[in-house]
Amino acid sequence: MQMEQPQFQLMDEDQLSAELIDAQYDLRKTRGQKNAKSLLILVNGIELAGKGEAVKQLREWVDPRYLRVKADEPQAVSPKQVFWQPYAQFIPAEGQIVVLFGNWYTDLLNSAMRVSDPINEAQFNEYLKEMQDFEQDLKNNHVDVVKVWFNLSWKDLQKRLKAMDPSETHWHQMQGVDWRNRKQYENLQRLRQRFTEDWFVIDSKNEKWRDQQFAQYVLNAMENCPEHRVRASGKWKQAKIPEQLKHPANTRAAPEEYKPELKKLSAKVAQAMRSDPRNVVILFEGMDAAGKGGAIKRIVKKLDPREYEIYSISAPETYEHSHPYLWRFWTKLQTDDDICIFDRSWYGRVLVERVERLISAAEWQRAYGEINRFEQSLVKHQTVIVKIWLAISKDEQAVRFKAREETPHKRFKITDEDWRNRARWDDYLKAAADVFERTSTDYAPWHIIATDDKNTARVEVLKVILKQLQAE
Amino acid sequence: MQMEQPQFQLMDEDQLSAELIDAQYDLRKTRGQKNAKSLLILVNGIELAGKGEAVKQLREWVDPRYLRVKADEPQAVSPKQVFWQPYAQFIPAEGQIVVLFGNWYTDLLNSAMRVSDPINEAQFNEYLKEMQDFEQDLKNNHVDVVKVWFNLSWKDLQKRLKAMDPSETHWHQMQGVDWRNRKQYENLQRLRQRFTEDWFVIDSKNEKWRDQQFAQYVLNAMENCPEHRVRASGKWKQAKIPEQLKHPANTRAAPEEYKPELKKLSAKVAQAMRSDPRNVVILFEGMDAAGKGGAIKRIVKKLDPREYEIYSISAPETYEHSHPYLWRFWTKLQTDDDICIFDRSWYGRVLVERVERLISAAEWQRAYGEINRFEQSLVKHQTVIVKIWLAISKDEQAVRFKAREETPHKRFKITDEDWRNRARWDDYLKAAADVFERTSTDYAPWHIIATDDKNTARVEVLKVILKQLQAE
Repeated sequence: MQMEQPQFQLMDEDQLSAELIDAQYDLRKTRGQKNAKSLLILVNGIELAGKGEAVKQLREWVDPRYLRVKADEPQAVSPKQVFWQPYAQFIPAEGQIVVLFGNWYTDLLNSAMRVSDPINEAQFNEYLKEMQDFEQDLKNNHVDVVKVWFNLSWKDLQKRLKAMDPSETHWHQMQGVDWRNRKQYENLQRLRQRFTEDWFVIDSKNEKWRDQQFAQYVLNAMENCPEHRVRASGKWKQAKIPEQLKHPANTRAAPEEYKPELKKLSAKVAQAMRSDPRNVVILFEGMDAAGKGGAIKRIVKKLDPREYEIYSISAPETYEHSHPYLWRFWTKLQTDDDICIFDRSWYGRVLVERVERLISAAEWQRAYGEINRFEQSLVKHQTVIVKIWLAISKDEQAVRFKAREETPHKRFKITDEDWRNRARWDDYLKAAADVFERTSTDYAPWHIIATDDKNTARVEVLKVILKQLQAE
Repeated sequence: MQMEQPQFQLMDEDQLSAELIDAQYDLRKTRGQKNAKSLLILVNGIELAGKGEAVKQLREWVDPRYLRVKADEPQAVSPKQVFWQPYAQFIPAEGQIVVLFGNWYTDLLNSAMRVSDPINEAQFNEYLKEMQDFEQDLKNNHVDVVKVWFNLSWKDLQKRLKAMDPSETHWHQMQGVDWRNRKQYENLQRLRQRFTEDWFVIDSKNEKWRDQQFAQYVLNAMENCPEHRVRASGKWKQAKIPEQLKHPANTRAAPEEYKPELKKLSAKVAQAMRSDPRNVVILFEGMDAAGKGGAIKRIVKKLDPREYEIYSISAPETYEHSHPYLWRFWTKLQTDDDICIFDRSWYGRVLVERVERLISAAEWQRAYGEINRFEQSLVKHQTVIVKIWLAISKDEQAVRFKAREETPHKRFKITDEDWRNRARWDDYLKAAADVFERTSTDYAPWHIIATDDKNTARVEVLKVILKQLQAE
């Protein structure tokens, strides 16, 4: 079932241009506002249908300064890369419009059409599902996604191929597709029909109509950015706080036992991370002074700084605020970073931002699903994610806070904010309980480690990492 | 002559840590201030000297959230890439500290030491000069650069190689260097001595001393960021305003001549840009309404949007302000973007920012040299830069402004700012005159094109591009 296309009429070009520009400016004005929106336009289609010409024409009608067009050589989907990784940086910020051709659908079709080692049906469907989920997450986060397929019938395509200026042939290629081969053409059409149900499909035979249909569709998308749900659905079912969090207990290790074991384990973990063909992501959450820094130090003990990256996550920067919350992690996690350690992480969304009421209930309640999909994508594409919660008791935290205040070179570690957070201890426990309940998945489980005795905790952390690396 | 090393004494570790953290916080506080500073620490040295350990130790003494460590696999310098291109994004913003190992010196040594096709002495020296100039530009723009060489004698290196745990050997490699080969070791020492004169060289035999020397040096660099010259030197010698700018004259072309020629030239230019093995950068400057947009349209007429990128440059964003002015162009110009067109450009520094007094005289007067070096680096590394000034007369501008105000879909093109700029017409002419005088180089000459008759101007633009592409 094709998306219903409204009765189409050619508009006066100057009128169309004026309306497009007005709509652009209205969109731009939403930056930093509560109703901020941005628009991502995915452009795909049959070769020679004139995607490029239509985008060029659009660019002439709008204020070109505020329409970004991004096009790279098509790639293939890869088991080592999440489909959004090459494109995350181009996802528009509030008030922006981005046209992306050469996008994840190009890569997907590419990989299904290529002669050697094409992806199979099941993989194709799995990718589609992942892509559609990702787009829904974008939409929920105020990035509207519209998708346009420039179509051309077999007959029209052959006509254009014949009429083509030979000097212009070089970019009319898609790896592995011969546009003069009817079987391949039909195969492509069959494949794309599996996802273009909610796309705007333009018959590109008539060039003028094509350009106007495209521009009018974009105009409509800008003028009618849908309101995405902002109210939380029903009553929130608070998870029960795990006993380990309420009463974190561990036995004190004697230094003469702990030290050799720590040393041995540090070396083992280093070796395991290095030799793992997957990327390794280790993230730490927990109350202030729970010992995240110290634990991280032991993980990297036997590594060279060239082998890992440590991210200390605090509040987003201004320019990050104008993107979906997870955007700064999409852009940080690059496929060639083998070992990434996060001192606090994307869970800030459902911890500090929830507890401090920096966001609406609808936003944090939605975030668990977003985070799960994000982690699942990474895990599917050869990343192992180790999630560790360091559980400290309230008494032990008080002891450490005081010690920090009394030690000059540790004083920076304790601020008013830490005391404020401590005052909200119970709220954080509740938030943590929901985190475990909703984001401890089989592909990325949580590990809660009691940390009142630092030494035992450090050994535990290393053991947990080792175990998860070896399990899979 | 080695840099003089101050009498060195081990400090109490807690004291050192406390002072480092204080210095970090002081540096951080300068963000957005007039005296804003940042610190880039380049770390190089002999393998196994313990660069990694020293950086790791530093990270433990400072507040690790505010010390970014970046290390990538070493690359080789490449004729298609300016040495700073892979690293530009890691240059610290105001208040930040970045440790970069795996930096341009690693790449340079790599390329000189490799067995197949090493770069020769002359190239080595040329790169060195370029790097040192770039670092000076960074320093002038409040990014302090300190460089540390971790040294190890031949004897000590061999000792460490023997004692090394075999499981840790894999990252102790530099392409093409065999650290057990004395001749290679000595060759490397000879090469590095050609640039480490102003480096801090640490004998890394004693690990404790090594770590402390490094940390103390960084502490000193943070505490004593030098004041870079902010006053303009002497009297400014204003260039004479070219006659073409004062009285831009061109003959009106008849449409029946102009149209076929334009069409022919558009195709030729597209072909020339495509087939050129170099990257092509075309930039436009000129008064408002001079027709930059229209000219750009004709350049890309025969191109597909996938083949080029258009950048419309306006005032920098907040986060760009915390970097050197040219930074946003360093990070934009990627080696795989074949054709980049700039609607306004880095010349904003010496045009609008100068005329509107947004920056000090010292800053704009320094900028000509910075721009020349920037362009020269690009040209050396296989980029052709076409710089076009569209010269409109004041009368014709008035006509176009009025026409814009009266046309709904062009109204967005005319704002109060345009009228303000027009009031400063003579100041802009003077600024333009200095631009031509000081930045029209043999490697990147300026082309002034009279534009009162748009058609003639568009033809001229295409001719000029074609000529410059074919000249070289």
